[in-house]
Amino acid sequence: MNYRMIAYLLGCVLLLIGAFLLLPVIVALIYGDGGLLALLQTALVCAALGFLMMLLKPKKDRTMHARDGFVMVSLSWILISLIGALPFYLNGAIPSYLDAVFETVSGFTTTGASILTNVEAMPHGLLFWRSFTHWLGGMGVLVFMLAVVPLSGESIYLLKAESPGPSVSKMVPKMRTTALILYGIYFAMTLLQIFAYQLGNLCGWGEISFFDSVCLAFGSAGTGGFAVRNSSLADYSFYVQTVTTVGMLMFGVNFSIYFFLICRKLKLIWKNTELKYYLAIILGAIAIITANLMLTGGYFSNARDAVHHVSFSVSSIITTTGYGTVDFSKWPDLSRIILVLLMICGACAGSTGGGLKVSRIVILVKTARSELRHLLHPHSVEVMKMDGKRVDREVIRGTSAYLVFYILIAVLSIALVSMDNFGRTDTSVTAVMATLNNIGPGTTILIGPSGNYAAFSALSKVVLILDMLFGRLELFPMLILLRPSTWRKH
Amino acid sequence: MNYRMIAYLLGCVLLLIGAFLLLPVIVALIYGDGGLLALLQTALVCAALGFLMMLLKPKKDRTMHARDGFVMVSLSWILISLIGALPFYLNGAIPSYLDAVFETVSGFTTTGASILTNVEAMPHGLLFWRSFTHWLGGMGVLVFMLAVVPLSGESIYLLKAESPGPSVSKMVPKMRTTALILYGIYFAMTLLQIFAYQLGNLCGWGEISFFDSVCLAFGSAGTGGFAVRNSSLADYSFYVQTVTTVGMLMFGVNFSIYFFLICRKLKLIWKNTELKYYLAIILGAIAIITANLMLTGGYFSNARDAVHHVSFSVSSIITTTGYGTVDFSKWPDLSRIILVLLMICGACAGSTGGGLKVSRIVILVKTARSELRHLLHPHSVEVMKMDGKRVDREVIRGTSAYLVFYILIAVLSIALVSMDNFGRTDTSVTAVMATLNNIGPGTTILIGPSGNYAAFSALSKVVLILDMLFGRLELFPMLILLRPSTWRKH
Repeated sequence: MNYRMIAYLLGCVLLLIGAFLLLPVIVALIYGDGGLLALLQTALVCAALGFLMMLLKPKKDRTMHARDGFVMVSLSWILISLIGALPFYLNGAIPSYLDAVFETVSGFTTTGASILTNVEAMPHGLLFWRSFTHWLGGMGVLVFMLAVVPLSGESIYLLKAESPGPSVSKMVPKMRTTALILYGIYFAMTLLQIFAYQLGNLCGWGEISFFDSVCLAFGSAGTGGFAVRNSSLADYSFYVQTVTTVGMLMFGVNFSIYFFLICRKLKLIWKNTELKYYLAIILGAIAIITANLMLTGGYFSNARDAVHHVSFSVSSIITTTGYGTVDFSKWPDLSRIILVLLMICGACAGSTGGGLKVSRIVILVKTARSELRHLLHPHSVEVMKMDGKRVDREVIRGTSAYLVFYILIAVLSIALVSMDNFGRTDTSVTAVMATLNNIGPGTTILIGPSGNYAAFSALSKVVLILDMLFGRLELFPMLILLRPSTWRKH
Repeated sequence: MNYRMIAYLLGCVLLLIGAFLLLPVIVALIYGDGGLLALLQTALVCAALGFLMMLLKPKKDRTMHARDGFVMVSLSWILISLIGALPFYLNGAIPSYLDAVFETVSGFTTTGASILTNVEAMPHGLLFWRSFTHWLGGMGVLVFMLAVVPLSGESIYLLKAESPGPSVSKMVPKMRTTALILYGIYFAMTLLQIFAYQLGNLCGWGEISFFDSVCLAFGSAGTGGFAVRNSSLADYSFYVQTVTTVGMLMFGVNFSIYFFLICRKLKLIWKNTELKYYLAIILGAIAIITANLMLTGGYFSNARDAVHHVSFSVSSIITTTGYGTVDFSKWPDLSRIILVLLMICGACAGSTGGGLKVSRIVILVKTARSELRHLLHPHSVEVMKMDGKRVDREVIRGTSAYLVFYILIAVLSIALVSMDNFGRTDTSVTAVMATLNNIGPGTTILIGPSGNYAAFSALSKVVLILDMLFGRLELFPMLILLRPSTWRKH
């Protein structure tokens, strides 16, 4: 293991976080309602620690193997979570450090699970930092680092380890340019959503403050789900809710689609298998749930309201954002089960959304179907295609392994969390699913919207923190970090 | 598709069922408490219909392809369920034919899920038939047919399709001899269990009638779970319960282990990976659940009782039998979640138990771990071994496909059953899991022991019937039967 190189890179990450902290510092200065000191102290800690660690930069051996890359990615996410929690803890807004870490991991991993019972009591600077972690974690802090820090050739491992989805296609040959393009699209789309919110103000379609616009846009962009009101998005206007629905759906799409759009490669978009399934699943789910609600009766007075709120909920759940406008824990069994399935399904690979990812599910189903044909015609050779191209055997095997690890981690976590003994097994099941899929307020599907994570024991919180990291980093980096043989001398 | 050959074989199956029905006829004659006429009528229907269908025997083309084999197996299971339900319906013991079919499918597939609320009211002849379906379905009606009817070479497809587990190893080169050995071991072990029960009577360790011994032995042998008392096994003596625990565990072991034992190939038993994992999982589960119950307190007054009842419950659930001595729905969350996991895990391949099977899980975990290593060392070649032998790539791919179909079928079934809208999503989830894994009274884990299947709608019952068949036949035969392209002209 190249410890010095890992330490050096972790130092870079810390300096970056220190720089990012200056944004909430500005917000705290503007509002003057507290949190300024805690934010400044944390920024200083980042700067000092980061500088010291960067001194460890190795002189000769700067090569990084796959293992170093995975370990570095996992460690950097753990480090930024531990440091990013300091403002909440130092300010006293979250008195327990473990809770503060939970909230920060939930932010960076774009989970959106909260231990706070009264969000509105928090100073604006800290509230901004809380939402900003979503935005940074959504595209990835390391991807940002790749875009700004010149690094040697092995950096593909970092991008591979941090980017969501079964296969990262470099958009352009140069890693750094890919990272720049990704962040460029991400930044532009976030700005667009803030602009759309403000347009509502101008045209009188619905009031929303500039602060709220920015925070909600951060939450949609990272598919996080931290809101700035206790009622999530229930008290905003229809217009604001609709903008959010569209925003969430757009950030759940593979970013290479937008790159193709910029390059006018419309044919590649048309051919994209995952996009078709993603849209089909969303439309299908909206149709079934709306029908289920209207036929059961007593939920919405008219079909327009039903379609509006069902679309919002479906988009929020499949993109693993977790915003809410209505209490879907009261919905009929079928609707709630579909929501849980959407949450496991997740958004497109290469988006900021969590979950298993639509393309993984497509690959798994296609593989299984080809096995069924193989059973009947043992001598036939099956070629699996996606987007008109042949899918690599490696990817198929990796996807099956992903599913198995996903199930194993879920099962172990559920067993550990169930030791809290709430008397209902679905509490532990949904808490684990909501964190492992980075959805966050997912317990609401079965338990109710007040069900936040404050009630869990310390052990459960640690398990759920690990689950969020497993989910965001797509299992493998964390698995490699925690595997004993990684740390054995070779 | 070779329709005439399929019809001919289905005719053989019907004649066989007609012959088997003579056993409960004798029981009905002895007890004289009803059911005789219904059983005789059904036997006559079987004989007449079977004879007519056997007339279709093709003169030239007797070859069967893989597809014909799978379709024939699925159809024969559906046919024997429809016919086997007649005694209950004709007698009026189960007034609804759908319910009677549910009960019979539950019997043949060794699920043990019941729609009856008062078992003890049923005439002895019908009660015997109900338990006898477990015994027949456990090893398989077609395997029996292979043992007695001389068939041509393609019969391997039938055995493959009906035997549980990822790979069927022929014990001896001749198919018919393998089938004979399997049924021989099965018959001897069932006799042994009946003998053990009766020994308790002789030595004064606990009373049990001969009728109860036979029925309970049938239920353990097939890992079915139909009991002859409303309280399942709660009111029998400690000795009877212990004999049942040991019996269930033994029928959950791969039958080739017993064949090795007879041949004195002890080395092969020692090398058997699945057996080791099976025993380790059982011991681990007993230890954790006992600790959980004793630490939570209020369940058992002493450790001896706790170990006794936990061992019984764990054995009953992992072998997917479904007998019960205590109400585990009151146990703490962790214990109940472990029971649900055991139920999904299931027993060994090549046993009469259901579930995913231990060896499948071992293969999946080994594959996933080797993928993780592959991620770090992309150029290494991984060879997966089990029982000291290399595992075929085909088996690995088939196992991944199995997991994916398993999840898809479970998800679709849960969505359909949830339309009953019981207001608790875990009702539909456990009902589907309990039928798909052929465990039966599994809803008790979450809902309580009174939770039987009478309350479900007709649609849900049909879905659960299909799930039982999917589970018993290990997905593929039923998938091939229901796949539209199977029925298209080629």
